[in-house]
Amino acid sequence: MEAQTAASTRQGQLTKPPGSLGQLESLAIKFAGLQGKEVPTIDKIMIRIFAADHGVVDEGVSAFPQIVTGEMVKNFAAGGAAITVLARQLNADFGVINLGTVNELAPLDSVTDQRITAGTANFCQQSAMSEEQLSQALEAGAQSASQAKELGIELFIGGEMGIGNTTSASALTAGLTDLPVEQLIGRGTGIDDEGIQRKLKAVQQGLDLHKTSDTTASELLAKLGGFEIAGLVGAYIRCAQLGISVLVDGFISSAAALVATRINPSIRPWLFFSHCSEEAGHKHLLQTLEAEPLLSLGMRLGEASGAAVAAPLLQSACLLHAQMATFDQAGVSQ
Amino acid sequence: MEAQTAASTRQGQLTKPPGSLGQLESLAIKFAGLQGKEVPTIDKIMIRIFAADHGVVDEGVSAFPQIVTGEMVKNFAAGGAAITVLARQLNADFGVINLGTVNELAPLDSVTDQRITAGTANFCQQSAMSEEQLSQALEAGAQSASQAKELGIELFIGGEMGIGNTTSASALTAGLTDLPVEQLIGRGTGIDDEGIQRKLKAVQQGLDLHKTSDTTASELLAKLGGFEIAGLVGAYIRCAQLGISVLVDGFISSAAALVATRINPSIRPWLFFSHCSEEAGHKHLLQTLEAEPLLSLGMRLGEASGAAVAAPLLQSACLLHAQMATFDQAGVSQ
Repeated sequence: MEAQTAASTRQGQLTKPPGSLGQLESLAIKFAGLQGKEVPTIDKIMIRIFAADHGVVDEGVSAFPQIVTGEMVKNFAAGGAAITVLARQLNADFGVINLGTVNELAPLDSVTDQRITAGTANFCQQSAMSEEQLSQALEAGAQSASQAKELGIELFIGGEMGIGNTTSASALTAGLTDLPVEQLIGRGTGIDDEGIQRKLKAVQQGLDLHKTSDTTASELLAKLGGFEIAGLVGAYIRCAQLGISVLVDGFISSAAALVATRINPSIRPWLFFSHCSEEAGHKHLLQTLEAEPLLSLGMRLGEASGAAVAAPLLQSACLLHAQMATFDQAGVSQ
Repeated sequence: MEAQTAASTRQGQLTKPPGSLGQLESLAIKFAGLQGKEVPTIDKIMIRIFAADHGVVDEGVSAFPQIVTGEMVKNFAAGGAAITVLARQLNADFGVINLGTVNELAPLDSVTDQRITAGTANFCQQSAMSEEQLSQALEAGAQSASQAKELGIELFIGGEMGIGNTTSASALTAGLTDLPVEQLIGRGTGIDDEGIQRKLKAVQQGLDLHKTSDTTASELLAKLGGFEIAGLVGAYIRCAQLGISVLVDGFISSAAALVATRINPSIRPWLFFSHCSEEAGHKHLLQTLEAEPLLSLGMRLGEASGAAVAAPLLQSACLLHAQMATFDQAGVSQ
């Protein structure tokens, strides 16, 4: 905590009224503590998108067909997706990890093929994945974190692509909290009122089938999760263990963060929350996580887009902390 | 409006669920209309800080001594102030216009000396400035806008530095709206409870002395304003007239925006609001302006810092609009 204390003292000496940079001050101080440096930096950013399909789509829970997951992976590779535009703006290290699109994909730029199988099983009927498959997905995420460490990454942003994954995220969140299921069901990519009812029914069915009073977070992740959500969980936990700060994206990523903190509560300080999305359950989920999101712009795209949009704020916080003159240096009266 | 319609159509074709980029979509569409281009850009940013002192400081309304205005101008020139750090992050065209520090300053890098006089008069006793002085300040702001036009600037950010200027901004806002004075008095750079009472008294005294039922916005600006606030007013109006979008900063800048829109309501579409600050009156002022601020990070520094921190969001909005693939281009199913 020495670095954090030094950073806090430094903030009080910079040429501004104390506290006048608001959250940007507390962010810089937190990063100082996490990086163990009075003057932390967020120059090197990694973005990894985990992609996989969901068996629960059979229940009619998504506005888009399942084939879109793989099509969007191709769009990531071609640089035409929102997150690829934002990755270029941030000059971030960008990559996609295919953990299980329904169809096999030909080799693609920036895409690592680590398909576990052709999507998860329908959790309304059976466990979404086996323990072995869960381990594979967690390990793929952890590998990304290890790679980030090797590259000297200072901020890890995870994202997800998986048609049907708001349903899985809602089920996981409901299973791990006391929040009413109704509060956690949203429109995802844009489903209609009947679709909402089908989502509600599917989530309730999944919880009835798989959740007992002693189901652990890991077990719940296997039973109701997705490969891409498990990939995020593995990445978040390993990032924190390796001392890399994480900027969490929207609803699905926050559900992964919830699972990760339930598996290993000690990782919580490394998680920063980028935004509160329009997806109905997100604000409740953020409250459960005691998160203070930086933005609230009505976004609900996922694929790490909210986190990427918020990342420059963290960079501003660190640059201000590093480069502002102190009252003494500038000869300004206090 | 053809460009705006085309941009709106384009947004519906990009590879994302419709509306899923939230405010970033509406921003891109608005910029398209304002720039008259289906694909608008926000690459070139200008930041101009207007600095001046305030006679009302004699009433004991600020936590910092008046000399700090000039000291901070030197800090801007040396690159040690918050806004100079952020200007570098944005690669913005940065400059300071000294419209009236109490002391004359030696020539400084990035600072244009356009001192009208040694600060405004104390508005509790007389008009803060003469009509002639108001014209000079407005014209200095307008000159910045003209320079922005010559340089092909796509986003103008104005900022202010002036010890005592929250008092002036509160008085102007109270004079132009039905908002109760108490709601508009905040701690500024950090004044205590007694200072708050002195601010309240000074503002009330200024209003009693200068405001009648037929006082115009321009007259009120001369009587209760500051040279730097008038500089912002002149810049905002001319920017809009020249077709340059403006990103407004915090409480004082928003008060200038209010005055500007009362002088010329047709400029309103060119004004974007960056953040809601911690300064007590700002949220009420933003509501009056029907503004939707992008950020709410508890900042209250002024000097354009909130606008500079928010600027990358506008750039993200335009980059996404320009560079994302359409469903057709990417071969993604709709």
